[in-house]
Amino acid sequence: MDNQLKVAVVGASGYSGEELVRILVGHPMAKLVALTSRQLVGKRMGHVFPKFEGMRYADLEFINSDVDAIVATGAEVAFLALPHGLAHEFAGPLLRAGLRVVDLSADFRIKDLAVYEDFYGAPLQEPELAAVSVYGLAEVYREALREAKLVACAGCYPTSILLPLIPLLKNNLLQPDSIHVASMSGVSGAGRTAKVDYLYAECNENIRAYGIPKHRHLAEIEQELSTAAGEPVCISFTPHLAPVTRGIHTTTYARPRLGVAPQQIGEALETAYAGRPFVRLLSGNALPETRHVTHTNFIDIAWRHDPRTGRLVLLSVEDNLVKGAAGQAVQCLNVMCGWEETCGLL
Amino acid sequence: MDNQLKVAVVGASGYSGEELVRILVGHPMAKLVALTSRQLVGKRMGHVFPKFEGMRYADLEFINSDVDAIVATGAEVAFLALPHGLAHEFAGPLLRAGLRVVDLSADFRIKDLAVYEDFYGAPLQEPELAAVSVYGLAEVYREALREAKLVACAGCYPTSILLPLIPLLKNNLLQPDSIHVASMSGVSGAGRTAKVDYLYAECNENIRAYGIPKHRHLAEIEQELSTAAGEPVCISFTPHLAPVTRGIHTTTYARPRLGVAPQQIGEALETAYAGRPFVRLLSGNALPETRHVTHTNFIDIAWRHDPRTGRLVLLSVEDNLVKGAAGQAVQCLNVMCGWEETCGLL
Amino acid sequence: MDNQLKVAVVGASGYSGEELVRILVGHPMAKLVALTSRQLVGKRMGHVFPKFEGMRYADLEFINSDVDAIVATGAEVAFLALPHGLAHEFAGPLLRAGLRVVDLSADFRIKDLAVYEDFYGAPLQEPELAAVSVYGLAEVYREALREAKLVACAGCYPTSILLPLIPLLKNNLLQPDSIHVASMSGVSGAGRTAKVDYLYAECNENIRAYGIPKHRHLAEIEQELSTAAGEPVCISFTPHLAPVTRGIHTTTYARPRLGVAPQQIGEALETAYAGRPFVRLLSGNALPETRHVTHTNFIDIAWRHDPRTGRLVLLSVEDNLVKGAAGQAVQCLNVMCGWEETCGLL
Amino acid sequence: MDNQLKVAVVGASGYSGEELVRILVGHPMAKLVALTSRQLVGKRMGHVFPKFEGMRYADLEFINSDVDAIVATGAEVAFLALPHGLAHEFAGPLLRAGLRVVDLSADFRIKDLAVYEDFYGAPLQEPELAAVSVYGLAEVYREALREAKLVACAGCYPTSILLPLIPLLKNNLLQPDSIHVASMSGVSGAGRTAKVDYLYAECNENIRAYGIPKHRHLAEIEQELSTAAGEPVCISFTPHLAPVTRGIHTTTYARPRLGVAPQQIGEALETAYAGRPFVRLLSGNALPETRHVTHTNFIDIAWRHDPRTGRLVLLSVEDNLVKGAAGQAVQCLNVMCGWEETCGLL
Repeated sequence: MDNQLKVAVVGASGYSGEELVRILVGHPMAKLVALTSRQLVGKRMGHVFPKFEGMRYADLEFINSDVDAIVATGAEVAFLALPHGLAHEFAGPLLRAGLRVVDLSADFRIKDLAVYEDFYGAPLQEPELAAVSVYGLAEVYREALREAKLVACAGCYPTSILLPLIPLLKNNLLQPDSIHVASMSGVSGAGRTAKVDYLYAECNENIRAYGIPKHRHLAEIEQELSTAAGEPVCISFTPHLAPVTRGIHTTTYARPRLGVAPQQIGEALETAYAGRPFVRLLSGNALPETRHVTHTNFIDIAWRHDPRTGRLVLLSVEDNLVKGAAGQAVQCLNVMCGWEETCGLL
Repeated sequence: MDNQLKVAVVGASGYSGEELVRILVGHPMAKLVALTSRQLVGKRMGHVFPKFEGMRYADLEFINSDVDAIVATGAEVAFLALPHGLAHEFAGPLLRAGLRVVDLSADFRIKDLAVYEDFYGAPLQEPELAAVSVYGLAEVYREALREAKLVACAGCYPTSILLPLIPLLKNNLLQPDSIHVASMSGVSGAGRTAKVDYLYAECNENIRAYGIPKHRHLAEIEQELSTAAGEPVCISFTPHLAPVTRGIHTTTYARPRLGVAPQQIGEALETAYAGRPFVRLLSGNALPETRHVTHTNFIDIAWRHDPRTGRLVLLSVEDNLVKGAAGQAVQCLNVMCGWEETCGLL
Repeated sequence: MDNQLKVAVVGASGYSGEELVRILVGHPMAKLVALTSRQLVGKRMGHVFPKFEGMRYADLEFINSDVDAIVATGAEVAFLALPHGLAHEFAGPLLRAGLRVVDLSADFRIKDLAVYEDFYGAPLQEPELAAVSVYGLAEVYREALREAKLVACAGCYPTSILLPLIPLLKNNLLQPDSIHVASMSGVSGAGRTAKVDYLYAECNENIRAYGIPKHRHLAEIEQELSTAAGEPVCISFTPHLAPVTRGIHTTTYARPRLGVAPQQIGEALETAYAGRPFVRLLSGNALPETRHVTHTNFIDIAWRHDPRTGRLVLLSVEDNLVKGAAGQAVQCLNVMCGWEETCGLL
Repeated sequence: MDNQLKVAVVGASGYSGEELVRILVGHPMAKLVALTSRQLVGKRMGHVFPKFEGMRYADLEFINSDVDAIVATGAEVAFLALPHGLAHEFAGPLLRAGLRVVDLSADFRIKDLAVYEDFYGAPLQEPELAAVSVYGLAEVYREALREAKLVACAGCYPTSILLPLIPLLKNNLLQPDSIHVASMSGVSGAGRTAKVDYLYAECNENIRAYGIPKHRHLAEIEQELSTAAGEPVCISFTPHLAPVTRGIHTTTYARPRLGVAPQQIGEALETAYAGRPFVRLLSGNALPETRHVTHTNFIDIAWRHDPRTGRLVLLSVEDNLVKGAAGQAVQCLNVMCGWEETCGLL
């Protein structure tokens, strides 16, 4: 075990941080050496997360979210599981101290700083980091991830939207201005933060849309779709909150370019994801269900051609905390380290 | 109370039937004289529906679903709360016996018999009834309902989709081929039927789409949209099942016709629904939430114009068992009888 | 409507306050003249509670929680729907200004000030009010409520525990030291307060006990049981949190006194609750289910004698926000005013 | 992998069978060679359980539930995940064919055949098997399990009740006639069977008791408690259904024998479960929560002494499908085979 890679989780008190811990407990190549949180300094991991009591790392004590303290643990890689807007406090210093950084926030995902400021309402701190970051979506950026020092993991909604669409746009099969998306997310996506809006008695037996028409995630979604299409792509996107703890279901409408045959859609997806361990293309009559992917790093995708309208319907599901956050981050780590992509994740 | 209208509920064992009973318990102008069910003959209503024990009608006993027996109760109006495909067994005979009929099923909603057969897989029984039925959506067909003998109540999904769109199509504000709909429904929509797919342990913590790309409700949705538009309208529609008991949330994308200003959208909706007691147009930043309409006959509607895409987003919520079924039926009855439209419903 | 009683709801922003508003919207004898909240001053009721938009009182604006302002509205009765420990700021001044007060908090329920201090951790403010308050449980204190100036409404758990037991203890049928209670409550019982513990993602798919072995509600439960028994009664009580929004289910074990026949239990309950409109004693094989009472003021009760152990099992369900709070308060008001006990509640 | 033990799962279509598959997918010492189901013959495992698609065994096809067919697969151990009353069709023949059998049903748990018949309403088939079976609760019967040919795995409710109580009864610390139990279970406990009572719309937002006062599980609970106490133990037990998919929470009241000091309770539990990998005794203020054990084989236990009543409160939680079924079965297998008790389970 001595040759295991030493990793730290910065901001480990939230749902993504907890999920990182769960994965790292079972990861054969990595060794968790630091958990940080300003509120939880000195607490045992098993005390903070009772479900992990009695398991590996249960006795690890939280340390302060402090760059020097993290460096002192010998960590070689740091996962940043912080709220948006705070990653810059750690990413630069840790990189300069020689660590590799896998950031789960949105901070370094947007290459165009004006777009970032437009969507996030403030200029990016340490903007030069956005330029060197690699977008953390291993199905698309595997090669770049191998050498990445800073990974900006793809967000939860974006992952569910990008993976069905990117192969189709890359193959020039879709009309870029025809994309309409409706996503439903579980409440854990709002984080472990005390807000009345996310109380049980407010969310239970309730469905609602929010954040329209200009949700922040559109910035990275359109950046990546445009890259894939080779031309600007602007989409409609409506996120909804549904009463589940975990899971995202995304339904996407798009129109094939003139002359594209339905089977080309299936072929493009199959070619893109052949051998990709976490993308499952459903066959036959099966449609994706979030319960089949929650607590896993899988994304399940199905599609249908509607002869009545000539449009495609693409359906995808994932666990927002795994493939949409912690699992994605570990998948990136696996690629960065040259390990099996599924290491610790299957 | 002797001058109350005598009403029967045929097929009262399901969720819609139960909801009809709940409303009729509090209805000042109607008197429930018969509840029918083949399985429940002889059972007290309060025994079948323990939540109504101790209330009006709790001692009413179920009778067989038999036309003669229903007529013998003196019923003047019959609500048919039967599974699709069975209404014809009752509608014709009851009409010929002089009753007025409010059917909650899809059987008499479709005017074009070929469309009915295409979507429902079998020819309509008693097709001449479809010709004389009035589509039961009081916000649209109030005048026709006043004299209706047979009402084919609008379905749950259709109501949530039609009410936001019809005023816009009537006013020629939308491109008819631009409509994309994603709806989420609670599980009561599947009925009180013993199927593994609707078990708690299958539906809880799960979101999934179903019935695509050609859900049966498209037949009536497109019929009514086309009537409003004065030209054929063909839409994309994806229903989803979400873990709530009640409630439908519908998100609709549409593109305004060239030259339509966003405020025309709001004006058309406000004009259409001014004084309509069950349509609430949300103002300010508010977005619809199903919890605000469940257990009521309201439909809440909001809309946003997205300057990035030029598209509209229309959002609507209703209780699938009330505005989508039993409440809608009673609202139609109120109009048919010349009572206050809100009678027993507020 | 001019001879309607003018009522105020103080602290109307929480779940109990909202439920009071819902009931008052439909109450024929009372007129809501004031809603108070320190956070919501100036907001329309329909804006704060969108589900009541378009209904009676939707345009009423919240005023500050200030005694003079409340008095100035002409209110004749004030409901206090405040967190525990704050009622004394309003109860005394409002009483002295001539209003009658119906308090939903625990502050004036405990007659023994030492017991209050023991369970609530601080001495009661305005202790003389506890002496004159009437315990707000109309099934037990109807006569005293008629003349009450200050009502201390029974709590949610206490109501579900007291109503099955009091008739049995009054009739000397139970061994007082044999009572063991396990209750399960929905999350709305924790109030509309932003705490991580009550987030959807913390409460969903989770069951846990809390507040043992000395929950605060024991003070009033044992006070009332002891009064009924004519001797001190000390019980075991474990509350649990279950993932429902509303509802309490209480299971109580008790041992009949030597020589008591099982049918005496049923007779005592039937005698006690004959003609009591909100207590439903279930017959046959039926067992209580919270869904049959949520959104109503009913409490459903069943009991079984276990010949194997010689013990009784008593089961009771109620809606914690209605029979356990707002409905109970209105039921008390109805008695105080000489109206039908069910007025506005059925 | 060739020296892996070959195992079959008989009746693999239900929730326990599915959970066995999940565990076996990750079990390093066992190899799944047969899945049986009368309804699913010829279907791929990954098709039946889409969440396991793309994982180990996804291509294994279901075979008929037929003894010869099972034997022909070379299986050395068979798990029987059948409804109660069917295990005898497989247990005897498979044992005679030389397999070891781990039965998850109640059929062979009850040693006293008259008790079995009393609680299960019919005489046991192959009663001689009950005599040779070992009760499958590794924390109590580890030694006997090592040589067992037929294991009758402890039931879900029984496990949650027995593990807190057995050490206390063995040490003579409790009054045997003082035990009162209230348990809450998730809906998966009712199995994947199409019944209206377990539909989502019936169970959601609902809490109810059932099966009182003489639930079938009392037979095995009292058998094992009596064995531990060395004298007959008769208890009160009320199971409740709560709206969660998985998880059991059990609250048990018991009175210590005269002179027993509270710390003896803790010491007895700590001694009994020192080094037992799946029993976690909570310390400090922590109380068990089902979410901390669902999807794991842990049982979490806490206890409190109530000085007011002199009684103990014992609280325990487990996943009904894991520690209450499939995990328990694999834990027994691990002991039977001399493997690490946690093999494949942590």
